[in-house]
Amino acid sequence: MPWPKSIQENNQRFIINENLTVSIDGEDPKRLQHAVTSFLRRLSNRSGVFLSHGFAVPLSDEEQAPIQISYQKSAELIIEDDESYQLDVESNKVRLVAHTDVGAIRGLETLLQLLTNNDSEYYLPGVSISDAPRFVWRGLMIDVSRHFHPIDVIKRNLDAMASVKMNVFHWHLTDDQGFRIESKTYPKLHKLASDGLYYTQEQIKEIVEYASILGIRVIPEFDVPGHATAILTAYPELGSKPRATYKIERFSGVFDPTLDPTNEAVYVFLENLFTEIAPLFPDSYFHIGGDENEGKHWDANEDIQKFKREHNLATNHDLQTYFNIRLEQILNKLDKKLVGWDEIMTPNIPKTAIIHSWRGEHEGLPKGGTLIEAAKKGYNTILSNGFYIDRMESVVKHYLTEPIGNIELTPEERKRILGGEVTMWSELVTPLTIDSRIWPRTAAIAERLWSPKEVTDIDNMLKRLEVINYRLEEVGITHIRNKNVILRNLSNNQDISALEVLSNVCEPLKIYSRNEGGTEYKTFSPFTLFADACNVDAKDALKFKQVVKNYTISLSEEHKSDVISLLETWAKNHKAFQKMDKNPKLALLESLSYNLSEVSKFLLKSIQNEKISKKDMQNFKTQLETLKQPFADVELVIANDMENLFEALK
Amino acid sequence: MPWPKSIQENNQRFIINENLTVSIDGEDPKRLQHAVTSFLRRLSNRSGVFLSHGFAVPLSDEEQAPIQISYQKSAELIIEDDESYQLDVESNKVRLVAHTDVGAIRGLETLLQLLTNNDSEYYLPGVSISDAPRFVWRGLMIDVSRHFHPIDVIKRNLDAMASVKMNVFHWHLTDDQGFRIESKTYPKLHKLASDGLYYTQEQIKEIVEYASILGIRVIPEFDVPGHATAILTAYPELGSKPRATYKIERFSGVFDPTLDPTNEAVYVFLENLFTEIAPLFPDSYFHIGGDENEGKHWDANEDIQKFKREHNLATNHDLQTYFNIRLEQILNKLDKKLVGWDEIMTPNIPKTAIIHSWRGEHEGLPKGGTLIEAAKKGYNTILSNGFYIDRMESVVKHYLTEPIGNIELTPEERKRILGGEVTMWSELVTPLTIDSRIWPRTAAIAERLWSPKEVTDIDNMLKRLEVINYRLEEVGITHIRNKNVILRNLSNNQDISALEVLSNVCEPLKIYSRNEGGTEYKTFSPFTLFADACNVDAKDALKFKQVVKNYTISLSEEHKSDVISLLETWAKNHKAFQKMDKNPKLALLESLSYNLSEVSKFLLKSIQNEKISKKDMQNFKTQLETLKQPFADVELVIANDMENLFEALK
Repeated sequence: MPWPKSIQENNQRFIINENLTVSIDGEDPKRLQHAVTSFLRRLSNRSGVFLSHGFAVPLSDEEQAPIQISYQKSAELIIEDDESYQLDVESNKVRLVAHTDVGAIRGLETLLQLLTNNDSEYYLPGVSISDAPRFVWRGLMIDVSRHFHPIDVIKRNLDAMASVKMNVFHWHLTDDQGFRIESKTYPKLHKLASDGLYYTQEQIKEIVEYASILGIRVIPEFDVPGHATAILTAYPELGSKPRATYKIERFSGVFDPTLDPTNEAVYVFLENLFTEIAPLFPDSYFHIGGDENEGKHWDANEDIQKFKREHNLATNHDLQTYFNIRLEQILNKLDKKLVGWDEIMTPNIPKTAIIHSWRGEHEGLPKGGTLIEAAKKGYNTILSNGFYIDRMESVVKHYLTEPIGNIELTPEERKRILGGEVTMWSELVTPLTIDSRIWPRTAAIAERLWSPKEVTDIDNMLKRLEVINYRLEEVGITHIRNKNVILRNLSNNQDISALEVLSNVCEPLKIYSRNEGGTEYKTFSPFTLFADACNVDAKDALKFKQVVKNYTISLSEEHKSDVISLLETWAKNHKAFQKMDKNPKLALLESLSYNLSEVSKFLLKSIQNEKISKKDMQNFKTQLETLKQPFADVELVIANDMENLFEALK
Repeated sequence: MPWPKSIQENNQRFIINENLTVSIDGEDPKRLQHAVTSFLRRLSNRSGVFLSHGFAVPLSDEEQAPIQISYQKSAELIIEDDESYQLDVESNKVRLVAHTDVGAIRGLETLLQLLTNNDSEYYLPGVSISDAPRFVWRGLMIDVSRHFHPIDVIKRNLDAMASVKMNVFHWHLTDDQGFRIESKTYPKLHKLASDGLYYTQEQIKEIVEYASILGIRVIPEFDVPGHATAILTAYPELGSKPRATYKIERFSGVFDPTLDPTNEAVYVFLENLFTEIAPLFPDSYFHIGGDENEGKHWDANEDIQKFKREHNLATNHDLQTYFNIRLEQILNKLDKKLVGWDEIMTPNIPKTAIIHSWRGEHEGLPKGGTLIEAAKKGYNTILSNGFYIDRMESVVKHYLTEPIGNIELTPEERKRILGGEVTMWSELVTPLTIDSRIWPRTAAIAERLWSPKEVTDIDNMLKRLEVINYRLEEVGITHIRNKNVILRNLSNNQDISALEVLSNVCEPLKIYSRNEGGTEYKTFSPFTLFADACNVDAKDALKFKQVVKNYTISLSEEHKSDVISLLETWAKNHKAFQKMDKNPKLALLESLSYNLSEVSKFLLKSIQNEKISKKDMQNFKTQLETLKQPFADVELVIANDMENLFEALK
């Protein structure tokens, strides 16, 4: 995963043994040396094979190396880079050939995914693979403003991105809740507007270098003119509300503080800041945000209104376009192309800008949002609508988000659709939980952006995702391991099995309903609650859906016993729950646990044709209704299937 | 933990609610602001209480703050610092008073440890605590040469150290297997001798600053003249073997490459290097290693022999003392005091040096090693003998290592015993496993070094350690969570419950027998094996020991059923083990699993007075003997108790 463009199997096997070596033939093998070392460590750790050579062998030993890698040149990390590769596995030889080093490291990830085993050995099955990405821009955005994420979080996610062939890390560095990068020109930014949680410039360089080694471009985002509370906390004089002071925002949502586009000092500030910051990011693209500015402070400011009239700027959109064009000029001087959220796509914005399509039906736009429109208007464009993983929706939905669909495009228009980005907004995630929100769903989106359009088999994807999911642990992703950390904390270190059972059928509330209005959680609220241990696509819920479906279709004894087995687990779980010493956090879950147990008992009676009293029936209905309601920030996602089962049993 | 000097309980309760605030009264409150923020996050995450204030309140609101902290001055991070504090918890008020900010943050950790709960609320029990450390030097050494440990590993361990009031981080930065720090003066050191795994100088500063905020001193170690393979890989001309070339060492052990103490270029090199590096470490102590130099290359070098004769240096020890004295002069110029492993304690070494006592009975010295001898000779000294946690011995042994014992010392001699250091040598640990080797045992040693000598109750310590153990997860320690990561990898993501059962009765081989002669594991061998998932003080083994003891004393039905319950777990475990699809890593465990199951079945029969055939008996004896043997780098630590049970049943 992502599934390659073409695969041909042969019946050979390349056995992994201690003599395995890897050679590299290509200019400036820095990326490959890193990739090969990492390949050998992961291979060894997975297989338990003690390799004699822990690093790529010198080119002089190339002839003898069982795995031979060659490429023509180093990639420049630009959108024109060639990431294709050809991989041939035979019984005694693996050949990996690519145009660029980045293509070769993409191929190495494929090779590692091929590793399999029988009782007695690990081996690579014989194949011939030709592969190349469908889209050139396959990104992950991480918001480090709402919650700060230290560089080790970023690094492990870069490693995970590389493992599924993603190539753009979009770093959302500023927002109302914090300015997260050291500025030597304007030190008040990080000193007053970050709570001490920011990246030093050295750390930024470290991440950019780390990403580069993995063939990942880094695009910084400085969100302006809205989402600017943090900037204005440090420099209130740049705001649109005269004589206002500002404080770092602690809640989530869309806020009013906005830079004043009529104030020349704002452009001086941005030019100085970007002149300082831009060189840290070698990529030629620079994201300026530009989203969700409602312009309330502009409307309320007489001078800004006057400026609009004087400059024939009829609406706030026109005023923002004026601002964006000024920004574009600043970025041009710095050799940067502007990227902005799709609100920037106004008639006068230059065609050099990239339109980042994020709004869709949810925001009152037609399905498909602004992506196709942008391409047709002549803009390069990337898609995030459909890839908002913080909405906590099923991987299936994201996987089936097809950027282009059946729309007919000219070759030029098609070429302007560069790809897409997964967006991880961080209002509700901390370093403890962020991995479980990004992964594994992002791996499926990575496949959408890399693999041919025709690769859409859900069941096949889900099966492969299960493997990728736990393999992500290998690069340090903490999504699986941290779940029990939260449950142990919830229980004060008691036996957590009852909580595990509950968490396998509950999912955090979706589409921002966990944090209605953005006012339930502050940035420093506890994110160690039951909802934080739960995840999308709850394991036992998927299983239950399947067995209920099977049973209601077939009514066979085998399928019946599958249903019974799950119901029994839940029926007896409340007893285990009750065994725990209570605390205020567990008390919140008690009625959920009780109702689930009671409803399961009722369904067990029902399916086993036991006698059901009127009272049983009444209780069942009340309890089931209760279970359908959100509770402790989660929803019990089996409630509907329980109802379906009940209906089928009637 | 560590247990305070004096505690008085009152019957009050300070209830945690959303209105809790904390004020700080003291100069330069940088450390306290960090500590209070961390305190509030941890309090909130543990209790689930949504606090209104996420940071310390301004001093103007001090009067109202329910928790009030005050101190007189910032600690300088020197051994003379006062770390005492006084903590008073009443129903509506908490007062924490200390001489220094570091004393106050030690007290805050105590306060957090006091947090407890009933069904409906979290609270701090009313107490009055006066506390101060027994020793001024309470350290943890981490070896980052044998395996490199990135800064996030170091940071989380610093947080964990602070949580048990440790105050010295000893950073073993160089050894045969790698030179781990960027040198601008001698860039070949990190470029050629680190495999790319080193700390930049910016990262060093980051760690030193991070430690300082936690009240932890950082002592760097540059191990010379032995353990120098990495240095000599970069600069072979400084070695004692003429015209030799060197390669980064991949095995473990004591190696011959040694700096040439008769070569003036060596002193120029060290002076330049230390002049560059020393300012990164503000602490006044600097560790030069000095251990395990067998001088083989010195003996083989005619010129060195000649030098010895010319300078009246009879032995290699004398030559090394000559070297150490030259080093001490260099360090003096840099305002640093020399610390060295106890081999440096030769007659001529100046009294300003600190003797780091590591050798003991295992190395042919009398029990107690060199600590007392050093103090009596006039040296300041610290103890590591008895605190070598990489030997994989029980926490009980380390906890009972009393530095001074009943030896009579003059007040001056007593004062010279500064404290001790836990040593985490990293031949067999990677970032995945290091936490599980350091913790929780280090917490018990921290208590030994902080608490009064009389605090030695093992059962009480073990009970408290269980709580501390899981609380370490809160600061990011991965010791518990990473175990299942390894088991999932071992099983290729199958149900790991059978492996968990096995791992709870097995411990990694002790006292370096896992890596006999240092030649089984290279630095890049897999450390994702079953032995890596196992840990010292295996959970169910301790339990079994206890229930067997109880039963053999009482022969009561209750204790019998405890024994049976454990035996049944093991008896049926092989069936679960067999259900897994096999792979080469699991295949290694099969006979262990089988024999454990068979022996358990036999003992079940025995205890339940079932008939036992001669063949059963024979099999049992053979299987038990097999189980007593090391296997797959682990030992089954219940084998002896199984035998004890058998003997008792006869």
